[in-house]
Amino acid sequence: MRILLYRPDSEAQAWTADFSKMLPEADITQWREGASDKLPPCDYAVVWAPPAAMLRELAEVKAIFHTGAGVDALLKFGDALPAHVPIVRLGDAGMGVQMAEYVLHAVLRYFRRFDDYEAQARKGEWTPLPQHRKENFSIGVLGMGVLGSRVLDALGPGVQCFSGTTELETFLRGSRVLVNMLPLTPETSNLLDRSRLSALPHQAYVINVARGAHIAEPDLLTLIKSGHIAGATLDVFRNEPLPVQHPFWQEPRITITPHISATTLRQESVAQIAGKIRDLQAGRTIADVVDRSRGY
Amino acid sequence: MRILLYRPDSEAQAWTADFSKMLPEADITQWREGASDKLPPCDYAVVWAPPAAMLRELAEVKAIFHTGAGVDALLKFGDALPAHVPIVRLGDAGMGVQMAEYVLHAVLRYFRRFDDYEAQARKGEWTPLPQHRKENFSIGVLGMGVLGSRVLDALGPGVQCFSGTTELETFLRGSRVLVNMLPLTPETSNLLDRSRLSALPHQAYVINVARGAHIAEPDLLTLIKSGHIAGATLDVFRNEPLPVQHPFWQEPRITITPHISATTLRQESVAQIAGKIRDLQAGRTIADVVDRSRGY
Repeated sequence: MRILLYRPDSEAQAWTADFSKMLPEADITQWREGASDKLPPCDYAVVWAPPAAMLRELAEVKAIFHTGAGVDALLKFGDALPAHVPIVRLGDAGMGVQMAEYVLHAVLRYFRRFDDYEAQARKGEWTPLPQHRKENFSIGVLGMGVLGSRVLDALGPGVQCFSGTTELETFLRGSRVLVNMLPLTPETSNLLDRSRLSALPHQAYVINVARGAHIAEPDLLTLIKSGHIAGATLDVFRNEPLPVQHPFWQEPRITITPHISATTLRQESVAQIAGKIRDLQAGRTIADVVDRSRGY
Repeated sequence: MRILLYRPDSEAQAWTADFSKMLPEADITQWREGASDKLPPCDYAVVWAPPAAMLRELAEVKAIFHTGAGVDALLKFGDALPAHVPIVRLGDAGMGVQMAEYVLHAVLRYFRRFDDYEAQARKGEWTPLPQHRKENFSIGVLGMGVLGSRVLDALGPGVQCFSGTTELETFLRGSRVLVNMLPLTPETSNLLDRSRLSALPHQAYVINVARGAHIAEPDLLTLIKSGHIAGATLDVFRNEPLPVQHPFWQEPRITITPHISATTLRQESVAQIAGKIRDLQAGRTIADVVDRSRGY
């Protein structure tokens, strides 16, 4: 069995080594852009941010494994993706715990007003503040997938579910903290625009760990400046790295992290993909096959 | 039944109202310093930061209830406290959850390096950092009382217990994050001095939600400046409010909050004390009676 591996970062060698350990029967080939005109023949491809030209040549593989949870960066190539080849995304693979930690930290920071205390401390100010009350601090998680469910588990009991665009406004009106964990698809792109963000209660908080393109960034900034939104913790942006001249850097009520809420863990990911390859080889069905019509 | 209530803050009226609701059969009297030379006779006293002169006159009461978890501020009066009157501190009363939130937030902040990301963001810097690994990030909780247990529950499984001063050094050497939740007694005062803090692993973190007097503040500062201790989150200090000229305010690796990790919740506390008063009236034993020889 031949596996073709592509990733443009410095980790390709380590991924190859891990695959050789987990699937000693496989022949692992790394591919680099410009390395050769033709892709070597293979049964499976394992890719991270591949070029469209590579994807076009993968019409004969049994599956393309994407080493991330969101496949928007792959599906954007549209027709360059061979139509009949299954695209498989990562399931949890250790990312759920990381996202739960990230979101829980941000929620506690707002709920317990550590952001306000930090601003006070910078001025040398000692003033205990009234505490927020849980009943006025409901947390709305947009996106109830594998990762969203892990985050909900970490936040504790008392979950009410909403679905579809008809219930979206009711959901937003009730969410003092909005946590975005949606996949990026044509339907969810720009979902959080001025009108949607304005539906959040006064002094709401926004936490985005999904994709920057879900949020209309200038609208978010306007609503923070106006005081309607009290603060935002953003791990993802339209353009990454966030450009140095981007106004978010200057807004103290926006907390910026460099797309680290959940990093792909190599060993967990290789183990998961190796297991799926064995299942496919044995003729079993596997989880996390992307439904291209839904976009995730 | 007569209950005498003393607190020097603006909340005395609200406490009285809550007690009247919870114990309608009781006669609640507020007392203010200087209000009268003699204390009115009473069966129970419910106090917060009372003057020594008041305590001396409480020799006839059936119990003195302190509306806090730590009674060091009461026991410091020594002989002014009638020797045979039970001192009763608050049990959990909603404080455990608050402390767990506070500690969990601080631990996640260090574990996921949000303090480093914040420092980077202030400079407009976008750099993903290597993640800490759980196996190098064990958390040592000093003090396994009602509140300490709640914090341990929130931090998750995998608890190893140490006890006594002989095991203290082993415990410190293994604690990348030290969480202090001890009661303040003559034995624990100044426990965390230069030698104890130096026993922590390189780049350790200190979280103090107990009392400022547990820590030798200049030693902590020295060890932070030297880089041995990577950061501290402090909610309590020798002198509160922390004086404006205190060097802690100028140290970016020290996070200061104004003694808010667990505030006394009035309704929960009144309900707890009222329940204990009913138990005592009915001749039942109650929890949280202070052992003066231990100091908590």
